[in-house]
Amino acid sequence: MQTLSELVNQAAALSDRPCTAVACAADTDVLESVNLAVSRGLATFKLFDDKELLIETISMKYPQLVNHPDIELIDSKGIQEAAQLAVEAVSTGSAQVLMKGNLPTATLMKAALQKEVGLRTGNVLSHVAAFEIPGFDKLFFISDSAMNITPDLQVKVQIIENAVTVARACGVNMPVVVPLAAVEAVNPAMQATLDAASLTMMNQRGQLENCIVEGPMALDNAISPEAAHHKGLSGPAAGKADILIAPNLEAGNILYKSLTYFARAKVGGIIQGASAPIVVTSRADSAETKLHSLALALLVSNN
Amino acid sequence: MQTLSELVNQAAALSDRPCTAVACAADTDVLESVNLAVSRGLATFKLFDDKELLIETISMKYPQLVNHPDIELIDSKGIQEAAQLAVEAVSTGSAQVLMKGNLPTATLMKAALQKEVGLRTGNVLSHVAAFEIPGFDKLFFISDSAMNITPDLQVKVQIIENAVTVARACGVNMPVVVPLAAVEAVNPAMQATLDAASLTMMNQRGQLENCIVEGPMALDNAISPEAAHHKGLSGPAAGKADILIAPNLEAGNILYKSLTYFARAKVGGIIQGASAPIVVTSRADSAETKLHSLALALLVSNN
Repeated sequence: MQTLSELVNQAAALSDRPCTAVACAADTDVLESVNLAVSRGLATFKLFDDKELLIETISMKYPQLVNHPDIELIDSKGIQEAAQLAVEAVSTGSAQVLMKGNLPTATLMKAALQKEVGLRTGNVLSHVAAFEIPGFDKLFFISDSAMNITPDLQVKVQIIENAVTVARACGVNMPVVVPLAAVEAVNPAMQATLDAASLTMMNQRGQLENCIVEGPMALDNAISPEAAHHKGLSGPAAGKADILIAPNLEAGNILYKSLTYFARAKVGGIIQGASAPIVVTSRADSAETKLHSLALALLVSNN
Repeated sequence: MQTLSELVNQAAALSDRPCTAVACAADTDVLESVNLAVSRGLATFKLFDDKELLIETISMKYPQLVNHPDIELIDSKGIQEAAQLAVEAVSTGSAQVLMKGNLPTATLMKAALQKEVGLRTGNVLSHVAAFEIPGFDKLFFISDSAMNITPDLQVKVQIIENAVTVARACGVNMPVVVPLAAVEAVNPAMQATLDAASLTMMNQRGQLENCIVEGPMALDNAISPEAAHHKGLSGPAAGKADILIAPNLEAGNILYKSLTYFARAKVGGIIQGASAPIVVTSRADSAETKLHSLALALLVSNN
């Protein structure tokens, strides 16, 4: 049984502790995650923000973090400069993970994607989430719930590659990938089924490596061996998916939210595809979710 | 707190017991639902199939249903004739609900949609499911998970109208409808958000009645008052959705399956939009799901 807290333990056990650069860290929610991570020995941190404000905010709630050996405070003026300096820290190699603090995601991503000192690789960026779902004894990796609106086949290839990288960093060496659709039959009227068929064959032709891809498949048959058996499906992925690839952004986002709100699943997620993993948690995320996300990023960066 | 078993009780309490026409009823799974419904006094039945086979199958497992006053057995040869006669029973008014037995959905729907004696109304047919989700104290109605692949705005209008009809038949007189998207902002690059904005304004202009429509909204903000509050949403639907409209078939199907498999929700569903509700359960559905679906159909037909 693999759990997200096990991923946190794995990240804490890495021999080289990666450094995380946090843009706009002068925020108690952000500092709560930093504090949790530091107390678990997960990572060292470079915190970017107005230094006076940073010290003041830290002193208020986490005095133990002032002058902490694992934390460096770096003065920056305004959110753009904080984003810029945090990205530079990662692109020059003095940090291995980029993390969003109290600034808009768009500002951080703009700095991360700039041509000169950014983290661009030419690859598609996609969100990969790891879910621990009550009643299931393994993690499910789900993508893309946040970045690509209507991914075409070529984008889906990279979404799968990014998800496979994350799953492998978490110890799932040959993940089973299911490109989801509403049905199992290939249907010319349903683009999701055509893409899924192509992705399956690309995997069989060696164009998608380090994983087993089989689709199209509806969600029930991807994750329930009983449902797959009932449906007469016997392929290598039937009922055994580790990675679920949503056919479009809405489907991915709705699945993500259904799992967190209706199925009460635990989650961690990162943006993958840049030269370093990026942690973009939202204000509504719990401290636990933020810790899971950071652990995921650290494991990926170490791989 | 509204539950699906309460809907079954409501259906059982209807003063006029509707009659359900079942195409290809000689199947123990199908007969299990019929037996449950008859024992609860929910409906009378016309069962269409080869009469000898029908009597043989009934006698094997449900001998109490042979010569039952609420059950009429009607001889038909082959699945096409069974479908045809069952549809005719409904279109001529001698039955009020059509139910799929042991035949392909396509065969039943072809008979139901034929021009001459079918159940066509010119309206869009859509699947409407009622979910009872652990931890939530009301039913959620979800559409469309099964029929319309990439509904355009006009089709979405009718998907909403069908769902509102079902919700009202279940006692939700002024349902709150959220056309789901991945975000709350109207974004020209995301068709789901444009459709949601138009549907919201159509409701405000009186073009969509008997409901309150507000979107676009992501799932979390549609169903969680806390999430909506956190996001600063204060519209009439924020956190209060009764009806969730999926932006496309894949999103609807994945949400449906996520609820049943990951969130362990109970469900019943019908196809709405024809001149009578149609119960199309699948072999993998439990007897309980089939009973919920039938109850939903009976309540709708009574309205």
